[in-house]
Amino acid sequence: MLAGNSLGKEFVITTFGESHGKNVGILIDGCPAGLPLSEEAFQEELTQRIPAQTDIVSTRVEKDTAKILSGVFNGKTTGAPITVIVDNKEIKTSDYEQIRNLPRPSHSDYPAYIRYGNFNDYRGGGRFSGRVTVALILAGTIAKKLLEQYNIDVLAYTTSIGKIRSEKKFSFAETRRNRDIAATRCPDLICAKKMEEAIIAAKNASDSVGGIIECVTTNMPAGIGEPLFDTLDAELAKALFGISAVKGVEFGAGFAAAEMLGSQNNDEYTVLNGKVRVVTNNAGGILGGLSSGMPIILRVVIKPTPSISKEQKTVDFSTMENATLIIKGRHDPCIVPKAVPVVEAVVAVTLTDHLIRAGYIPKVLKEKKKKE
Amino acid sequence: MLAGNSLGKEFVITTFGESHGKNVGILIDGCPAGLPLSEEAFQEELTQRIPAQTDIVSTRVEKDTAKILSGVFNGKTTGAPITVIVDNKEIKTSDYEQIRNLPRPSHSDYPAYIRYGNFNDYRGGGRFSGRVTVALILAGTIAKKLLEQYNIDVLAYTTSIGKIRSEKKFSFAETRRNRDIAATRCPDLICAKKMEEAIIAAKNASDSVGGIIECVTTNMPAGIGEPLFDTLDAELAKALFGISAVKGVEFGAGFAAAEMLGSQNNDEYTVLNGKVRVVTNNAGGILGGLSSGMPIILRVVIKPTPSISKEQKTVDFSTMENATLIIKGRHDPCIVPKAVPVVEAVVAVTLTDHLIRAGYIPKVLKEKKKKE
Amino acid sequence: MLAGNSLGKEFVITTFGESHGKNVGILIDGCPAGLPLSEEAFQEELTQRIPAQTDIVSTRVEKDTAKILSGVFNGKTTGAPITVIVDNKEIKTSDYEQIRNLPRPSHSDYPAYIRYGNFNDYRGGGRFSGRVTVALILAGTIAKKLLEQYNIDVLAYTTSIGKIRSEKKFSFAETRRNRDIAATRCPDLICAKKMEEAIIAAKNASDSVGGIIECVTTNMPAGIGEPLFDTLDAELAKALFGISAVKGVEFGAGFAAAEMLGSQNNDEYTVLNGKVRVVTNNAGGILGGLSSGMPIILRVVIKPTPSISKEQKTVDFSTMENATLIIKGRHDPCIVPKAVPVVEAVVAVTLTDHLIRAGYIPKVLKEKKKKE
Amino acid sequence: MLAGNSLGKEFVITTFGESHGKNVGILIDGCPAGLPLSEEAFQEELTQRIPAQTDIVSTRVEKDTAKILSGVFNGKTTGAPITVIVDNKEIKTSDYEQIRNLPRPSHSDYPAYIRYGNFNDYRGGGRFSGRVTVALILAGTIAKKLLEQYNIDVLAYTTSIGKIRSEKKFSFAETRRNRDIAATRCPDLICAKKMEEAIIAAKNASDSVGGIIECVTTNMPAGIGEPLFDTLDAELAKALFGISAVKGVEFGAGFAAAEMLGSQNNDEYTVLNGKVRVVTNNAGGILGGLSSGMPIILRVVIKPTPSISKEQKTVDFSTMENATLIIKGRHDPCIVPKAVPVVEAVVAVTLTDHLIRAGYIPKVLKEKKKKE
Repeated sequence: MLAGNSLGKEFVITTFGESHGKNVGILIDGCPAGLPLSEEAFQEELTQRIPAQTDIVSTRVEKDTAKILSGVFNGKTTGAPITVIVDNKEIKTSDYEQIRNLPRPSHSDYPAYIRYGNFNDYRGGGRFSGRVTVALILAGTIAKKLLEQYNIDVLAYTTSIGKIRSEKKFSFAETRRNRDIAATRCPDLICAKKMEEAIIAAKNASDSVGGIIECVTTNMPAGIGEPLFDTLDAELAKALFGISAVKGVEFGAGFAAAEMLGSQNNDEYTVLNGKVRVVTNNAGGILGGLSSGMPIILRVVIKPTPSISKEQKTVDFSTMENATLIIKGRHDPCIVPKAVPVVEAVVAVTLTDHLIRAGYIPKVLKEKKKKE
Repeated sequence: MLAGNSLGKEFVITTFGESHGKNVGILIDGCPAGLPLSEEAFQEELTQRIPAQTDIVSTRVEKDTAKILSGVFNGKTTGAPITVIVDNKEIKTSDYEQIRNLPRPSHSDYPAYIRYGNFNDYRGGGRFSGRVTVALILAGTIAKKLLEQYNIDVLAYTTSIGKIRSEKKFSFAETRRNRDIAATRCPDLICAKKMEEAIIAAKNASDSVGGIIECVTTNMPAGIGEPLFDTLDAELAKALFGISAVKGVEFGAGFAAAEMLGSQNNDEYTVLNGKVRVVTNNAGGILGGLSSGMPIILRVVIKPTPSISKEQKTVDFSTMENATLIIKGRHDPCIVPKAVPVVEAVVAVTLTDHLIRAGYIPKVLKEKKKKE
Repeated sequence: MLAGNSLGKEFVITTFGESHGKNVGILIDGCPAGLPLSEEAFQEELTQRIPAQTDIVSTRVEKDTAKILSGVFNGKTTGAPITVIVDNKEIKTSDYEQIRNLPRPSHSDYPAYIRYGNFNDYRGGGRFSGRVTVALILAGTIAKKLLEQYNIDVLAYTTSIGKIRSEKKFSFAETRRNRDIAATRCPDLICAKKMEEAIIAAKNASDSVGGIIECVTTNMPAGIGEPLFDTLDAELAKALFGISAVKGVEFGAGFAAAEMLGSQNNDEYTVLNGKVRVVTNNAGGILGGLSSGMPIILRVVIKPTPSISKEQKTVDFSTMENATLIIKGRHDPCIVPKAVPVVEAVVAVTLTDHLIRAGYIPKVLKEKKKKE
Repeated sequence: MLAGNSLGKEFVITTFGESHGKNVGILIDGCPAGLPLSEEAFQEELTQRIPAQTDIVSTRVEKDTAKILSGVFNGKTTGAPITVIVDNKEIKTSDYEQIRNLPRPSHSDYPAYIRYGNFNDYRGGGRFSGRVTVALILAGTIAKKLLEQYNIDVLAYTTSIGKIRSEKKFSFAETRRNRDIAATRCPDLICAKKMEEAIIAAKNASDSVGGIIECVTTNMPAGIGEPLFDTLDAELAKALFGISAVKGVEFGAGFAAAEMLGSQNNDEYTVLNGKVRVVTNNAGGILGGLSSGMPIILRVVIKPTPSISKEQKTVDFSTMENATLIIKGRHDPCIVPKAVPVVEAVVAVTLTDHLIRAGYIPKVLKEKKKKE
């Protein structure tokens, strides 16, 4: 398919909606029939996007509720396209009128204007707004429910914000538990606190700060991915760059592998309980683009929010002269915590697509004897 | 399209062939009609893959010659599918018999076996071999000839090998000139020499070493890319991960953005000769997934060659017992230099696809009055 | 894209919704920016689906209203995905409970059960219901508005119902005028009346009747279509078979060409006002899968409605024994008239997709000086 | 994928090559691993294209031999892309120089010139030549070998040529046996003889003649097809219109359904040996776009060969004046017999694609204990 708002080949998600339109939404074609699904299922994921009230988030709090428009019958998916929407609320379009002719530095405003001209929906960034990631969370919710049936578990968390970097490793369960507690979504709770302070410091300086999110997937079967181009790492990377604040993606040792010798980087094999296992996992669970059966480990870097309230230099489109801009409105000084569930969603969606492509997840789920 | 050996939507390349099969090749569907193309055009690019004879490459030297099977008439492309092949020569399959049951650490052998079972063509890594990147170079040659017509210039070069890292910046012309001189493809010729030594040191230690390749594209028009998912960064990343040694991709400031404040990372606008320009280019020429009109800058990390002649631990498939492996045969102690033209090819192919998708390159080129 | 609910490659429509779900709807990705679009635009087309109250339609009359969820800003398309829904009303699900275990002959009930098992939304045929064609009309409305800007005109009309066959030819304008008058959508008003009688006769006999719809497109430029497989005829045929009552598609002379000699069937060329024209148009405006610049003429056969109130033999799924079925509820004795605007919509959508693919319709429409 | 030379989503075939280029060929991506395949396998099918020497075929006899370039190892497919070529021989390009400026009526010459301008490879029709169908036969050979493993049998045969129409029905086995004997590929051997005479009569009159081909597939499982748009009938129709002489496609009762009442057209169900069966098969084995488990029956009309040696009116591109044309060279007075194996190939390819999409054929075939 040529048009660019769809992702996936078997579990195909298409997002729609704009920051200041009626709603944002997702259409999923290719979701297997027989998956239990209710509107409540989306609530937990949507809520997780908004950390428990702290000073680190924008005061624009969107209380989101999902509505299923199609594809579910008797509480289960039917195999037909699933459409889910979340209405937009609390929209103050006036805040954004100033940017019509003054492109915000490091925002999509400028290239979007070049591309779509005066037809572009510039309000709040339109299609390029972080608001649109709500649609990814809707898709991720469904993907995660599917993966759950196969005990595949995707978990994203913050590992660095600004110069605060957590190197500490925790068990999977502990990582999840701590991640959910920390407003910054960093499982290392001591670091998490320092990160919060870094965000508040940036906010107080009318500035913003970036960070790194790591994502681990366990129980992924080996041999999944479609060489040469639809490999698992290629498709995960593509999907992750669909989050527009992402500026880099790496797997396993990632960029650190540049400095390693082959003998350091190679993951030797060993037999453990009759199964092939690796001693290290510098490959991040992907070899030759196929899953290796080891945990899939990846990291993305999230750039500092470009919307800062400091005065910035820009150009006035209407006069083609230099101008200055002070961005008004409420903006997050750091979007890393909000991006954590989005990364998780995007990874879940991509893995689901590939598990269906490989035939590992069938198109019609087996009926369970008992109620789920 | 579901099958994974194709890349692109308008300029669609499909690779075929295996390391030890008859040939490797490329089929391109959607190449505009009217592009001058001869078999000689491929020769220069193919030769560039093999650095002038130094100690840093494997002694297996493949003298490759391209044959055009279809899509060219009277020396120009017709709009029909173009097929180009390069025959495989000098194949010593016996070298690879040992790996049939002993998966090489950090190679695709293990997951490929899980996926394709006994049907997998394991000889020399089969489809997963670096040999297959010759097909990418064939596609890249055509893409670069198209981009040339629009003065768009793609240039890749080495910036680090092992612990040797070049920070020095050169002009575009100088970068190319130096890059072509250095066997390691590093434009910083002092560093280039040190890199060569690092490779030889690794080789002498029966080991291998990784590195980082940077790629710059100039004159890319603004507004190219297809949000939300077929964005320029997403599609470049996907294509780059199609090179199986790549373990990370970043744009502009990349992972360094994690530590930057918004005010440091934001690229302010200014008017220069009546055009909108950025003062810095931390975005690497891509905003909201669209090209910003500034140079596109990206970096990939290449892991150290997994084929090392040191003894390694592995598992014997036939007995499911622990085993040791000493990989025989000729292997490059560092594939970074060989990967440089591949990165360039892959970037050229992806940009070409998007320039056609955006209508910037038409499907039938204008006939030129004079001979090219 | 693998999932089957999307059509097109540049102007990609995806339908969603079921007969007895909340709504039916369409998502269009790739609609050019700058097209004036309002909710009222859909009303006329939706109304045309329901002929002025006569005895020939089912008494279930759906008063449909379109709601735009996304993709329109300031009354114009933005280039972002457009989502439009129509709510379902007047649903009497109880009518369909009987078919749960008794598949209706020549309906999708049986294969849908085999495919989706108990998860299938069988209510009113679910996804297989004619109700879903409302989504096609929504997509067609947008496509026709785009084609209008290029003076391309698509017109479908009935040429036969049961044994009543109209052979008379009218001018394009007259065809449209008469078509709109006749409840059976046949421009030959004398035939139209007879067709109406044939439908009422079938209805009174608890039976149904089929027919043939012809569709003409004028002003289609030459050279559109993508050989070898995405040819114009191939893609039109595919799209038309997306209407599930269609059992045959032919272009120009169609099946009659079997009995013709080459010298009879060939359309000779002549120069008319400095342009290449054909004397006859047995090709139906398509040669080698490309538009020839002549009117595109095609015909589809619509099978008689399978839902008849006569007693029929079937099989009870729950017992796997022979059974009889008398279908209850309101059903059209002939769906040909209702299918006319659907055929028109489907042709318009396919031509639009190809005109964008060929670059004939740009991705951002030119801004008009005056108000539309 | 946008480019138009590929067909299918899981079993993706891409054709390449031109009538007078080096070769014609096929690349198949997505063929399951483990299928026994040798170059000899293609020979039988290629030979079948050329009826045993009679007066009804052109004197240009192409003795074709297939070469496998990739995707096969140890006599079995590996899951990697399969490329197969057939070299072109006996090319007399001079025959075609005349058509450079004089488009042949009802050939693709005119729209191809409009589309590709002077870059079009006009020699022998280039990409639009019937020669390219050899690539379809290559693909069909592989598809049929796959279907064979599941006892699915595709059989095409001639039912009418010119005004000679065979209505007689034979058993499947008899149809195949007689079809293979008759030069016209009509299983009704008395009709077959008359058809031969009709072809010779057309030839002697410097004319040509068309006909109808029917294709039956047995043992197709129920529930295959991807609603709403990638339905089995839609995709078969699309694929069949990829044969450029096809001007119409119908399933089951086809166009005859227009005159039938619902009670006549409906296929009632009955239980036969514990299985659901239909009494009639007017649906042609497809309901709601899904296979019904009954034989799939379709018919295509093949127009009379447009290349006739009678004088015809055309237009000279170079002067834009009326002109006359007498086509030189060897041409078949009827391509129906040659099209029979092509129809069979195209149907086999499409069904294979859908059987893989539905998960009925796995991506890696089970290893058989015994030698095939």
